[in-house]
Amino acid sequence: MSTSRTELKDLGKFKLIETITENFKLHHPTSIHGIGDDAAVIDTGNFYILVTTNMLVEGVAFDLTYCPLKHVGYKAVVGTMADIIAMNGTLEQITVSIAISNRFTLEAVQELYQGIYRACEHYKVDLVGGDTTSSTSGLILSITAIGKVVKEKLCLRKGAKPYDLVCVTGDLGAAYLGLQILNREKKIFEVDPHMQPKLEPYQHLIERQLKPEARTEIIQLFDQENILPSSMIDISGGLASGLLHINKVSGVGITIYENKLPINQKTYETAEALHLSSTLCALHGGEDYELLFTIPQSELPKIEKHPNIHVIGYVTDVSLGVKLITNSDESIEINAQGW
Amino acid sequence: MSTSRTELKDLGKFKLIETITENFKLHHPTSIHGIGDDAAVIDTGNFYILVTTNMLVEGVAFDLTYCPLKHVGYKAVVGTMADIIAMNGTLEQITVSIAISNRFTLEAVQELYQGIYRACEHYKVDLVGGDTTSSTSGLILSITAIGKVVKEKLCLRKGAKPYDLVCVTGDLGAAYLGLQILNREKKIFEVDPHMQPKLEPYQHLIERQLKPEARTEIIQLFDQENILPSSMIDISGGLASGLLHINKVSGVGITIYENKLPINQKTYETAEALHLSSTLCALHGGEDYELLFTIPQSELPKIEKHPNIHVIGYVTDVSLGVKLITNSDESIEINAQGW
Repeated sequence: MSTSRTELKDLGKFKLIETITENFKLHHPTSIHGIGDDAAVIDTGNFYILVTTNMLVEGVAFDLTYCPLKHVGYKAVVGTMADIIAMNGTLEQITVSIAISNRFTLEAVQELYQGIYRACEHYKVDLVGGDTTSSTSGLILSITAIGKVVKEKLCLRKGAKPYDLVCVTGDLGAAYLGLQILNREKKIFEVDPHMQPKLEPYQHLIERQLKPEARTEIIQLFDQENILPSSMIDISGGLASGLLHINKVSGVGITIYENKLPINQKTYETAEALHLSSTLCALHGGEDYELLFTIPQSELPKIEKHPNIHVIGYVTDVSLGVKLITNSDESIEINAQGW
Repeated sequence: MSTSRTELKDLGKFKLIETITENFKLHHPTSIHGIGDDAAVIDTGNFYILVTTNMLVEGVAFDLTYCPLKHVGYKAVVGTMADIIAMNGTLEQITVSIAISNRFTLEAVQELYQGIYRACEHYKVDLVGGDTTSSTSGLILSITAIGKVVKEKLCLRKGAKPYDLVCVTGDLGAAYLGLQILNREKKIFEVDPHMQPKLEPYQHLIERQLKPEARTEIIQLFDQENILPSSMIDISGGLASGLLHINKVSGVGITIYENKLPINQKTYETAEALHLSSTLCALHGGEDYELLFTIPQSELPKIEKHPNIHVIGYVTDVSLGVKLITNSDESIEINAQGW
């Protein structure tokens, strides 16, 4: 028995997963891809089943001071869905497990499930199972999503090739700034419980934080236009993290341009007001539930007019690393540095 | 907005699940069965996929004072597997999510995953995904299992018919008594930390509690002998609860006999020493991870010599309810009463 003591905080999430799962082997030929992509891939003969799972802990993933339970439920479904979409798949079923302390009433749990219900109705997803148990503190949610994808249309993080275009959907940084605003108002509220939070000017940011949507229409577009991304990843963990994953797994370099990053006007203004860099918010903020993907240059005509798809750079040789070309034409190496 | 306040403890787990999921509809024709059986059933064309999920909270599902992390991991896999087996399926893939407080070191998490690894190797199961996050208190595990079953061999809780035989596997009540012994020794230890726990005499009970196994060989037997149970359920929630589920879902009555209950000699002796009824331990103890199933009487010759299958009664008309015929020939109604 080893008596060494390694603190988890010194390790980081990805290194932890790598360390604890290194000995595991796959026994079944149906297990096509295991750990290491947005979802696991299981062969059913006719198509692939995609499986992904998220665990959300109160006080870590969400704060009930400003996040209504309905939104927690809705966002939990969308977050899990984003992983299925990032494989170019469609979500069909979910299971939801909850652990709840006796602080919660039936009415509170019902509110949570109203959010889950809303997301299930909106995205046509079936809740097919789950578990309920008590917790010693707070609320913990675990959602597993089961999707499917036509075999030939599966998109992995692996597959990007030099000269491919690098694209992102939607706009970046807003969810992170929404969180900063909510945290600021929470602190003011803690000092003065009679204050009215000033949230109206930040509606876009707060909506991106509290009620994100899944990019199902992009997957539909790929299908209609017969586009097959060479690689794809969900960037709810941040754009920089997504770029580094594709860099590592595809074995390519990536160069992106600061002036191509899709940043909403309100995101710019708010970042400035809070003395933050909107570029860093876009790179590392996370929780945007957007897609990062690469496509061959020949596919450009099919996507360049789409209002929610933005070409931000191109794929290079792996020796060039992951680079940001700034507005002042400097080349900066992008790393996993968070905040 | 309703202002009523219903405490969850007044509701019970099954009523809670019923209440929060009553509005949910199934949208996909592939969702064959949702909530309400041991696992969800999804149609892939060639066969059915089975999906089930369990959430285990430290201090609720396990106590790390006497349950080594390796056993927590092993038992978590077996527990989820039991739900797949109860559908007459085989488990192929699992995902494991953990939330952990900073009290745990990497070495502790590795020990947990060693248990998961041992179970995966023993039962040929592939760990294909998961999530890790921090928790504000203790360890929470969420396991989702994905199995498969030939369509014609699917067993539900529904399907038992009058005159069918009622069978259980293994022996009952031991895991519950193992827990009582561990709790007793824990209390002694709290008073005198120098004491050596006296566990040797209770090896069978403690093994049943800490390291249960899954009844995969019964599913193989069904396959070899071409037996299709008319209904089946995992009884880790207790035999009584399993009988009542089949009663409700199949719309039948069930009569079982006290003198047919498979109770190990050590279970008898320990129950007696602790002033507990071994019959009640067998009925309500739970955590035995055994199977309860019904078969037509014509199948009796195929199972009656099997050392781990016990015929404990028969299916009746629903009007007769769920009954235990005691050793003194009294007929007692079985209800959901726990401990």
